[in-house]
Amino acid sequence: MSLNKDRRIGRHAVLLLLSDNPVEQLEKLKQENWIGCLGKVGSMDAHKVVAAIETAAKKNGIVRSDVYREMHALYHAIIEALQGITRGQVQIGSILRTVGLSFAVLRGNPYDSEQEGDWIAVSLYGTIGAPVKGSEHETIGLGINHI
Amino acid sequence: MSLNKDRRIGRHAVLLLLSDNPVEQLEKLKQENWIGCLGKVGSMDAHKVVAAIETAAKKNGIVRSDVYREMHALYHAIIEALQGITRGQVQIGSILRTVGLSFAVLRGNPYDSEQEGDWIAVSLYGTIGAPVKGSEHETIGLGINHI
Amino acid sequence: MSLNKDRRIGRHAVLLLLSDNPVEQLEKLKQENWIGCLGKVGSMDAHKVVAAIETAAKKNGIVRSDVYREMHALYHAIIEALQGITRGQVQIGSILRTVGLSFAVLRGNPYDSEQEGDWIAVSLYGTIGAPVKGSEHETIGLGINHI
Amino acid sequence: MSLNKDRRIGRHAVLLLLSDNPVEQLEKLKQENWIGCLGKVGSMDAHKVVAAIETAAKKNGIVRSDVYREMHALYHAIIEALQGITRGQVQIGSILRTVGLSFAVLRGNPYDSEQEGDWIAVSLYGTIGAPVKGSEHETIGLGINHI
Amino acid sequence: MSLNKDRRIGRHAVLLLLSDNPVEQLEKLKQENWIGCLGKVGSMDAHKVVAAIETAAKKNGIVRSDVYREMHALYHAIIEALQGITRGQVQIGSILRTVGLSFAVLRGNPYDSEQEGDWIAVSLYGTIGAPVKGSEHETIGLGINHI
Amino acid sequence: MSLNKDRRIGRHAVLLLLSDNPVEQLEKLKQENWIGCLGKVGSMDAHKVVAAIETAAKKNGIVRSDVYREMHALYHAIIEALQGITRGQVQIGSILRTVGLSFAVLRGNPYDSEQEGDWIAVSLYGTIGAPVKGSEHETIGLGINHI
Repeated sequence: MSLNKDRRIGRHAVLLLLSDNPVEQLEKLKQENWIGCLGKVGSMDAHKVVAAIETAAKKNGIVRSDVYREMHALYHAIIEALQGITRGQVQIGSILRTVGLSFAVLRGNPYDSEQEGDWIAVSLYGTIGAPVKGSEHETIGLGINHI
Repeated sequence: MSLNKDRRIGRHAVLLLLSDNPVEQLEKLKQENWIGCLGKVGSMDAHKVVAAIETAAKKNGIVRSDVYREMHALYHAIIEALQGITRGQVQIGSILRTVGLSFAVLRGNPYDSEQEGDWIAVSLYGTIGAPVKGSEHETIGLGINHI
Repeated sequence: MSLNKDRRIGRHAVLLLLSDNPVEQLEKLKQENWIGCLGKVGSMDAHKVVAAIETAAKKNGIVRSDVYREMHALYHAIIEALQGITRGQVQIGSILRTVGLSFAVLRGNPYDSEQEGDWIAVSLYGTIGAPVKGSEHETIGLGINHI
Repeated sequence: MSLNKDRRIGRHAVLLLLSDNPVEQLEKLKQENWIGCLGKVGSMDAHKVVAAIETAAKKNGIVRSDVYREMHALYHAIIEALQGITRGQVQIGSILRTVGLSFAVLRGNPYDSEQEGDWIAVSLYGTIGAPVKGSEHETIGLGINHI
Repeated sequence: MSLNKDRRIGRHAVLLLLSDNPVEQLEKLKQENWIGCLGKVGSMDAHKVVAAIETAAKKNGIVRSDVYREMHALYHAIIEALQGITRGQVQIGSILRTVGLSFAVLRGNPYDSEQEGDWIAVSLYGTIGAPVKGSEHETIGLGINHI
Repeated sequence: MSLNKDRRIGRHAVLLLLSDNPVEQLEKLKQENWIGCLGKVGSMDAHKVVAAIETAAKKNGIVRSDVYREMHALYHAIIEALQGITRGQVQIGSILRTVGLSFAVLRGNPYDSEQEGDWIAVSLYGTIGAPVKGSEHETIGLGINHI
């Protein structure tokens, strides 16, 4: 059940966000049988970040919204990614900070074994800081779950 | 005090780890006036991860070990990066999991304004999972602090 | 100061919630000198869950609202029960999820020794999930405190 | 994707532990197409609690140890159950307390829809307290995950 | 049930630690019907900090070790005080830091109303930092509970 | 890089709050080359506590609002102080409690070595409890950061 070196789902999901040309990169990944999408969200409400990612993933057919196990897998991957973003408590505006994030969701099997089935990765990259222009630094998060 | 697009310290620190040729990449960064180092650590003890990064950063002259404010800045950046890795509690072996990580430490000014002085970024990338070969998935973390 | 096998307050409080006939069960417990109440609350706001339980406990004479030590004991038991429900951060709607819970509060001495005086148990059982019908799974929590 | 009232996996998993005759109860559940096991573990080390449950689940064929997605699902269900037990930080002996727990692991589909596939529930019930006989109160935890 | 201005238990417990002459201060408090004790502990193990405070409180007759409700009240007050010391996760050596603390435990009724009975305050003051001399800053914590 | 016994920034910041005459005390500290301010804030919103302290610190020239590294240092000191106040999750009204706090911010070098430069301490002292008069106990928090 080893991770396949070429199919490291987390690495792909993060490189997408850091790429100078994420749309083109995503196209390449799709040709390698990954399903994925990209988006952006800025908010002081953590629940709006969750909602933006869920909506994008549903619209792009990455998860089926009528199958709870898929939504459950995605939700936990998002919350885990938010842990990296918020580093301590999954709170944004309630402790007077704001985020501006781009996100990627990627679905596929990163393991050598077919038995492992699909996994999902949610990556987040952007800035976090005071609600004052420029008073911010970068932040990153990655959540991975079986789906 | 805006972030300089070409000097996004967190992005650089993460790309280093995901690069196919991190040593060469680090050399390029040094030519652009960044100070930095790379390393690897695998452990079930969070304190060994902290120690490995601190030792590397001291040895490579990224922080001065006799100036507590520098060590303090580095320590908090490491703990924040570990939050992304562990996603919930900064514990590894005590809840029966293990990590295999590569890390980068980068120091420099990511802002347009010279007044902002130096900042430090600690990036971590690798796998987390059960202490059984292959029972693991990827994980990433980034901590940024003023120094 | 051993726990009395027949007077395990936490077990009673949880069985009440899982019973097919909780009201009848509560009557039986009252005959064995327990004080208790039952209720239901559905919300995306954690503070509304806290308030619903506090109100029920006060109305039913389980705690005296003019004695802070009793309210303090109850409050901490509620927050501990919410930890089991939320598993990680005591947040509901702020991370885009909702709960539908039944609750029980029970008061009495679960120990052999009379010196131990009264203790309070708050049990919670129901569902947690996305604010979409059916997108939810079960969840349980128990908080116990001396009063 | 509604929860099936008769197949509430969390309720079954908790009732097993609180039953006067858990082995008999488990047999009944098996006749209704649940897969499950029971066990006990007492420890000051959280990782030993995790290991005891994982070992029991593997031995009893509830999860396949060579399929990481199954071990991953189980692991997160265990950690979530431990959140209810520890209520705040997933630590036991490191903050000078000890647990004596019975546990159940149950696998099956709690939803009406077949598409939902298998889910796993880990329930924990017992005592937590000082490492001194009798200085303890009850504690409960439940973790549920798709598998 | 207002707090009595002269009997603010937390303020007294903290001033004791910051006093130039804590022993003399404690004597004065005892004349005002407070029960209390002082001590020191340095460790990388959180459980040793807990144990040192519990032992001092028992030895000095502040809590009765054979009454679990008293030990339970003290334990939670200690853990709450440690939250202020550790600010995020109740871990010391496991994330490579060490503490040198003085502590006070104070028992009495800080409220106007006699009904409020006894409360307990645990205060901690000292330094936290790397296990290197001088690489440390101050830290404080206060936990208060009904007893 | 030892802490200077007479210049313990945290101790000074806490004593200010517990003093019968904080304004006079602050004047004395200013004569010893500390920069500082005092204030009060009562709220159920953690972000309002953060904002009140940030505003006071900026108005009194303790931090420069146009230098992000200074605001970043202050922000983290505030959040650390709030950990001591809230003991577990940095939430107030969202879990149905309220705070009434006085605060101090102090800036200066607490170390013997001039190389250590300025550090910042944020101290908080007051009450936390139910939003009902008198249903509250004391709470304290201290955050320290290099600036």
